[in-house]
Amino acid sequence: MAKLGFLGLGIMGYPMARNLLKAGHEVALWSHTAEKARSLAAEGKATVCGTPKQVAEASDFVFYCVGDSAMSRQVALGQDGLIEGARPGTIVADCSTIAPDTAVDIHEAFKKKGVEFLDAPCTGSKPGAEGGTLTFMVGGDQAVFEKARPYFEAMGKVFFYCGGPGMGLNAKLVQNLVLANIMQAFNEGMVLATKAGIRPELMLDVLNNSAAKSGLISFKAPYVLDRNFGTNFSTKWMYKDIGMALDNGKRVGVPLPVTAVTSQIFQAAVSRGLGEDDFCSTIKVLEEISGVEVKKS
Amino acid sequence: MAKLGFLGLGIMGYPMARNLLKAGHEVALWSHTAEKARSLAAEGKATVCGTPKQVAEASDFVFYCVGDSAMSRQVALGQDGLIEGARPGTIVADCSTIAPDTAVDIHEAFKKKGVEFLDAPCTGSKPGAEGGTLTFMVGGDQAVFEKARPYFEAMGKVFFYCGGPGMGLNAKLVQNLVLANIMQAFNEGMVLATKAGIRPELMLDVLNNSAAKSGLISFKAPYVLDRNFGTNFSTKWMYKDIGMALDNGKRVGVPLPVTAVTSQIFQAAVSRGLGEDDFCSTIKVLEEISGVEVKKS
Amino acid sequence: MAKLGFLGLGIMGYPMARNLLKAGHEVALWSHTAEKARSLAAEGKATVCGTPKQVAEASDFVFYCVGDSAMSRQVALGQDGLIEGARPGTIVADCSTIAPDTAVDIHEAFKKKGVEFLDAPCTGSKPGAEGGTLTFMVGGDQAVFEKARPYFEAMGKVFFYCGGPGMGLNAKLVQNLVLANIMQAFNEGMVLATKAGIRPELMLDVLNNSAAKSGLISFKAPYVLDRNFGTNFSTKWMYKDIGMALDNGKRVGVPLPVTAVTSQIFQAAVSRGLGEDDFCSTIKVLEEISGVEVKKS
Amino acid sequence: MAKLGFLGLGIMGYPMARNLLKAGHEVALWSHTAEKARSLAAEGKATVCGTPKQVAEASDFVFYCVGDSAMSRQVALGQDGLIEGARPGTIVADCSTIAPDTAVDIHEAFKKKGVEFLDAPCTGSKPGAEGGTLTFMVGGDQAVFEKARPYFEAMGKVFFYCGGPGMGLNAKLVQNLVLANIMQAFNEGMVLATKAGIRPELMLDVLNNSAAKSGLISFKAPYVLDRNFGTNFSTKWMYKDIGMALDNGKRVGVPLPVTAVTSQIFQAAVSRGLGEDDFCSTIKVLEEISGVEVKKS
Repeated sequence: MAKLGFLGLGIMGYPMARNLLKAGHEVALWSHTAEKARSLAAEGKATVCGTPKQVAEASDFVFYCVGDSAMSRQVALGQDGLIEGARPGTIVADCSTIAPDTAVDIHEAFKKKGVEFLDAPCTGSKPGAEGGTLTFMVGGDQAVFEKARPYFEAMGKVFFYCGGPGMGLNAKLVQNLVLANIMQAFNEGMVLATKAGIRPELMLDVLNNSAAKSGLISFKAPYVLDRNFGTNFSTKWMYKDIGMALDNGKRVGVPLPVTAVTSQIFQAAVSRGLGEDDFCSTIKVLEEISGVEVKKS
Repeated sequence: MAKLGFLGLGIMGYPMARNLLKAGHEVALWSHTAEKARSLAAEGKATVCGTPKQVAEASDFVFYCVGDSAMSRQVALGQDGLIEGARPGTIVADCSTIAPDTAVDIHEAFKKKGVEFLDAPCTGSKPGAEGGTLTFMVGGDQAVFEKARPYFEAMGKVFFYCGGPGMGLNAKLVQNLVLANIMQAFNEGMVLATKAGIRPELMLDVLNNSAAKSGLISFKAPYVLDRNFGTNFSTKWMYKDIGMALDNGKRVGVPLPVTAVTSQIFQAAVSRGLGEDDFCSTIKVLEEISGVEVKKS
Repeated sequence: MAKLGFLGLGIMGYPMARNLLKAGHEVALWSHTAEKARSLAAEGKATVCGTPKQVAEASDFVFYCVGDSAMSRQVALGQDGLIEGARPGTIVADCSTIAPDTAVDIHEAFKKKGVEFLDAPCTGSKPGAEGGTLTFMVGGDQAVFEKARPYFEAMGKVFFYCGGPGMGLNAKLVQNLVLANIMQAFNEGMVLATKAGIRPELMLDVLNNSAAKSGLISFKAPYVLDRNFGTNFSTKWMYKDIGMALDNGKRVGVPLPVTAVTSQIFQAAVSRGLGEDDFCSTIKVLEEISGVEVKKS
Repeated sequence: MAKLGFLGLGIMGYPMARNLLKAGHEVALWSHTAEKARSLAAEGKATVCGTPKQVAEASDFVFYCVGDSAMSRQVALGQDGLIEGARPGTIVADCSTIAPDTAVDIHEAFKKKGVEFLDAPCTGSKPGAEGGTLTFMVGGDQAVFEKARPYFEAMGKVFFYCGGPGMGLNAKLVQNLVLANIMQAFNEGMVLATKAGIRPELMLDVLNNSAAKSGLISFKAPYVLDRNFGTNFSTKWMYKDIGMALDNGKRVGVPLPVTAVTSQIFQAAVSRGLGEDDFCSTIKVLEEISGVEVKKS
């Protein structure tokens, strides 16, 4: 059986790594917070490592899930990073949502040492990570992905092979771009309806009975109407992802005018202290300006 | 059995009026294009009138479906308009999508003569009008709506009573605001994905497997990928409706920043000659600037 | 000497009419608030009329200055309006800022009776109106304008003949579009600078020493830094004018994406209760969201 | 007399370094293109160096002017960079327009070695660089700036000391943010006026006679009307600077909605191949969509 490694045991990474352990794999763990690694290690055939490098030395396949491009670059290519411990043939998969060009850089740095790299961002939030039902969008060499697929299958259910290095991230960022804009479409529509005197529940029924019905609105609207802005996916992370989508537009040459404005509304939400709340809390920016609340009557 | 009237036999009005006839009702017809009225009259218990006024004289319930606020005001309150023929107790329902404040004006003008008025815009496009499966959003007096409901039921399947005068229109405009913005979200995402090198079919699969899945995208995306921009709902009408939604934001005091930008992209589409095409053709604005086409490979 | 008329004695109209009186002209006056007309009449060779119609009957040249398109249409074409009293050859000049297509409508209605009409919006604010130093942008027949010019010269110093009916207004709306956007450019720049830690006075010096130096910024910045938002030109009027500029873009087929967003920021300002303040108060929208004030240290 | 160094002999750097030579200073030169250094060295008391490090070894004061944040970091902190040759007390001034946080990084890296650093971006374009009339916005220690001022005075005429590390850049980016938005305000206004039928020269006269008169419009408008888009400051550089201003908004927490849209119009211009043209060529984006040209009649 292959030896696995996992780095980054946050909200997503912890349950993802646990699913690898549950599937019976031997997993070398590393986390910025060593305690988390020790705690998880107690649950299965795991060893705790002191550095990413040590994880790479101990593993044939390494998965990781960290917060942003800089952290990804650090665990992959920094001091005591994976690159120092990986051998030709080692497969490394970054499940974080980072900038595609950072992923390409990492891919190229690994390639020089014969290490294989996949960008493999995922969706499904915490419940998907816990239930092993994530969706992965994968960029890199397809044959490499097929070798790693059995281990991905312990963590997810749907897999899209999207193309060469960075293409998994390109797909993920487009998905989040569309989601952020649908959120803002909902925000504008619901604040307008409410201020115009329509009960929010009724307006929601109208939307859900139309072509505007969407997974996002069905999922988020009840939270908004209940004024429950606890986080499934925070404003600050969504804001970060839109920023990377805009950078992507710049890189490939596509203007994104509506996304740019949505991004500034999300910035306004962050400026108003909503960064840690769920991104459906962005509706508060318009509510506050308009003097109205979209809540259950 | 009540005597009905119907004015405006366009793409929507013609099949709506035909469904009233099919249901066995006696219908007085008037159309700007008299030929249409004569053609339809041949299909059932219909009479052709020379003016809206004559329709009102002959009817207990009058429905109409015209192009914009000015036309609605004209058939209702203009010379030889409904108001000249209607009696106290006549019920008039405007199924057009017009400005809510125009509807309120018409409502008030009718009220002075004891005539009841409902704003009752609908969705479902041509297929919904033909199949009698439209959704109606109704503003006005609820008891009045209940009296008219049996006749609405020959034309639609779902009914939302939204509140007093203009509230049906408020709901309808919010719905179209959300739809237009989802369309533009799709446009930006798909052009970005395609230029970044992702096959459009794949990107669509990714979206449809996520919370971004929505009725609008499922319906429109195949047309876009097939480069089939024949009209279900034209860019110019959607652009008109967004404009009224923005006017509504002005009236009630809600800023709509993303909708405002979507509106300008739709304006760009109209300027580029796409006004008569389906509103999914708005994607061509970004495609042309970006030098890429979102089409099936 | 020609007999003049003047309608609408508001902030602009009052001093404009007074300048006609001061120049020794005989002026028939009408104001919605009769008191204003009586008060002004005491200052010169003026008579007070009970209706616009009476002013037209008494005058060879009629000037007026009212609040919006609806009011302009009312005094020109409404009951007891100018059209009822004007004779072939009478020259009517509307100095209000209204929609160009309303001006074209009025022009055409007058033309049928042989009455000449000019759209002649002006700039220069209250001080310009008082000092007789306004700038006029004139649309209509050039020969007609030349006949009226001597009377305009009692009210203004600079005259731009812009073309046929509505063209004076087209020019005026473009001017205000540019001004509103420069205001918002200033707002965004100054809030960013201040939050980044640059003293507002210093940032202003930098701007004023660069190509960004402009009449608007030089005029408005001291008010902002002194937190003095008393009105020279109110947010609500500027917001109205941007709205007409956007409608103009729709009419002639030009997308105006930045103007559309500026318009929504101004809407936000109006929603926050800043409609009656000077339009430089729009900076408060960003200040409030960003938690910073652009004020003298 | 102090020994000076200058790195980066591009459109701006070459005439700036030449002005140091003309003032009689001894200057150590380095350029990515060695030929430029040799050519300039022939004009005065200059030596040509093989690396930034060698320049630092030979100089008490080092100035440089390069293209972007990455290049600045490279010449300052990279292999054979200034940091390897500088001694405690050496003063290094970066005259490039780069990201403020990059400048802060460089400042901190130098500080550890006792080297003083100033961020000192400038404006005035090529003519300002050639004539020695640039304006500098300076961040860093004020006493350090005063020591370097005599040499700056050979290159510029106006100096704004803006505060600690990065503050010169913050001021510069705000200035360019305001300029870019004024450019787009002009673009939207002039395309609207022209399509509405006003001669561009006339519209320009109207603007120049109003509070919209600004240095930028006075400077750029004649080029636009003459359809002369040769570069004074290219679209791609302005686009880069707006991007850094937006990043700055993100860093300090200020939403910049209008700037965000202007940025996307500039992106559209770059996508349409206007990156190397002067940034007044951005007007072509709207012109092309609207089917009209703002040119002298």
